Amino acid sequence: MTHKILVLPGDGIGPEIVAEAVKVLNVFTAEGNLSVELEYANIGGIAYDKEGQPYPDSTRALAQKADAILLGAVGGPQYDALDRPLRPERGLLAIRADLGLFANLRPAILYEELASASTLKPEVVAGLDIMIVRELTGGIYFGQPRGIRVLENGERQGFNSATYTESEIERIARVGFETAMKRNKRLCSVDKANVLEVCELWREIVEKVGKEYPEVELSHMYVDNAAMQLVRAPKQFDVIVTSNLFGDVLSDAAAMLTGSIGMLPSASLNSSACGLYEPIHGSAPDIAGKGIANPLATILSVAMLLRYSLNRPELAERIERAVKTVLASGVRTGDIYTEGDRKVGTAEMGDAVVAAL
Amino acid sequence: MTHKILVLPGDGIGPEIVAEAVKVLNVFTAEGNLSVELEYANIGGIAYDKEGQPYPDSTRALAQKADAILLGAVGGPQYDALDRPLRPERGLLAIRADLGLFANLRPAILYEELASASTLKPEVVAGLDIMIVRELTGGIYFGQPRGIRVLENGERQGFNSATYTESEIERIARVGFETAMKRNKRLCSVDKANVLEVCELWREIVEKVGKEYPEVELSHMYVDNAAMQLVRAPKQFDVIVTSNLFGDVLSDAAAMLTGSIGMLPSASLNSSACGLYEPIHGSAPDIAGKGIANPLATILSVAMLLRYSLNRPELAERIERAVKTVLASGVRTGDIYTEGDRKVGTAEMGDAVVAAL
Ligand SMILES: CC(C)[C@H](C(=O)O)[C@@H](O)C(=O)O
Ligand SMILES: CC(C)[C@H](C(=O)O)[C@@H](O)C(=O)O
Repeated sequence: MTHKILVLPGDGIGPEIVAEAVKVLNVFTAEGNLSVELEYANIGGIAYDKEGQPYPDSTRALAQKADAILLGAVGGPQYDALDRPLRPERGLLAIRADLGLFANLRPAILYEELASASTLKPEVVAGLDIMIVRELTGGIYFGQPRGIRVLENGERQGFNSATYTESEIERIARVGFETAMKRNKRLCSVDKANVLEVCELWREIVEKVGKEYPEVELSHMYVDNAAMQLVRAPKQFDVIVTSNLFGDVLSDAAAMLTGSIGMLPSASLNSSACGLYEPIHGSAPDIAGKGIANPLATILSVAMLLRYSLNRPELAERIERAVKTVLASGVRTGDIYTEGDRKVGTAEMGDAVVAAL
Repeated sequence: MTHKILVLPGDGIGPEIVAEAVKVLNVFTAEGNLSVELEYANIGGIAYDKEGQPYPDSTRALAQKADAILLGAVGGPQYDALDRPLRPERGLLAIRADLGLFANLRPAILYEELASASTLKPEVVAGLDIMIVRELTGGIYFGQPRGIRVLENGERQGFNSATYTESEIERIARVGFETAMKRNKRLCSVDKANVLEVCELWREIVEKVGKEYPEVELSHMYVDNAAMQLVRAPKQFDVIVTSNLFGDVLSDAAAMLTGSIGMLPSASLNSSACGLYEPIHGSAPDIAGKGIANPLATILSVAMLLRYSLNRPELAERIERAVKTVLASGVRTGDIYTEGDRKVGTAEMGDAVVAAL
């Protein structure tokens, strides 16, 4: 069976890092272990430049037929002056909504070899391994009504709506519990139920779904406390499940605890097996085109792609092991370099992973 | 001129820590340096227990006549089963709204003597001194409509509204700029304008107000990035101004960077001089009544009260210096104790500050 993979290199360092990830896929196809058909399309700023839209219809048509999507990154300062609907990040929001990618899995893992990169004390973060399950197609990101209106007194008022239905909460809660079942069976649901009604419903439904997972130890935490606890004692968490906005903030904080966001992949899944896989770091326009970006987060995104969309966990593990081998050998891109390591560029790092495979 | 100060000890450790803060006020009155009239009332769980409401009318009447309010903390597990409108934290939300306390100032300061308490590496947090200006009476906390409704398909949907008018943004922006003017003249406005219309208006108005403060270096940051930057390099910030919800999350994260939230006060101000002053830590029901809670955050809240509501900066500074002297002498409550220090209880710590004054 041949899997259709849509590759969306995007902006900034996107094309460079995606190229290395594709090298890794090619190892498996060359071995005869995997059959994939790669198609390429535009998203973000480059899509606006070439096709006038951050998520063009041509990309959309390919995305809807793909088994999985590999994305680099979107955005760049040259697009800041565009009208909002045309900006690169709107392409990202559009593809999430279009494909119903409601479950965003964001691991925050501290690699032993990179422990010193964290701004936190080693004993606080050693062995850190959290999975954040973020709802990605609901909440205040997509809630209606929204806009800027003029009130009776002539003043403008900006307004957005944070909404969640029972079924939206139920399906993301289920992903949270299933994820916890595959890990250490602890799930922390983060909300602000002491202030927001939408979170009251969230908590009620998460509790209800929890009844089906008696083995999972479920806890609830307010988002302000969760932000504190991530700084105070992050290792208390196994899996966190939360809304779109809270997940945006907490997953970035959690990623930064590791000190090496150049290492962290993500998966965005829908209710069929199709998923979008991307590094959590951005397009890093300042270093784009220099061949120095770290491709490991994108390579590890391919591992997630193999695990979640292509159901090939053994290939995913091979990639993850290869990355660890490379790190253990002291090979480093600039972002994770410390004295005594061997500093390499993007392509060399990709080659090192290929060699380790 | 005699200032009316309303004292709201509240729940948990509230009464103990407030008692020490009152001792400090009494030093100034005994010296003849200050004339205050203290009145006491209930808020939170104790108010529900005694008067059936977390913010009773009796408290409200006194609050509206007060020149300043000193609050301990609210909340406790015995109130968890109450209907939401009766819970302790609703008392807090009610008094904020009732008195129009729209500007919440939350300093995150690392005391040199307590540097080792932080989970972050010393070089990352040494000398940390951030002021977070959080909007406190608008945004999604108070936005209408809100609730849980039944959709046509029979499903329930929770909904809340994040709203800000131009004037609401303008007045909090102004507090941000004024605060920056008194400090290092750098203001970072945190929003999520790439996704939310309410934040587009926020950014536009903050920019507009900024024109009146050419000396202040204004920057904008998305909330997810702000959460990352607080972990990565917190000392880049001077003053942060942000919405109610983002401020809730970021100020708790920032406080935790210092490792000693038992030390951090806060002020909530309205457009007249009246303000509510409280420690940012909670009611700590687990240690309530044991005489071991740290009263310094509450004592430092009195310093803020003297500075912002009573216009007595010289007395505020005396308190702040006294607290530093006490820390330098090695006197510590349990929460900030490390080996070699002299461990004391709540009352002894209060006495130590009084002695240092
Ligand atoms: C670019 C932006 C719209 C996006 C988001 O807020 O979801 C990004 O921060 C992310 O987390 O993927
Ligand atoms: C108790 C709660 C309602 C409150 C808030 O969210 O504002 C608290 O977290 C705070 O920050 O003062």
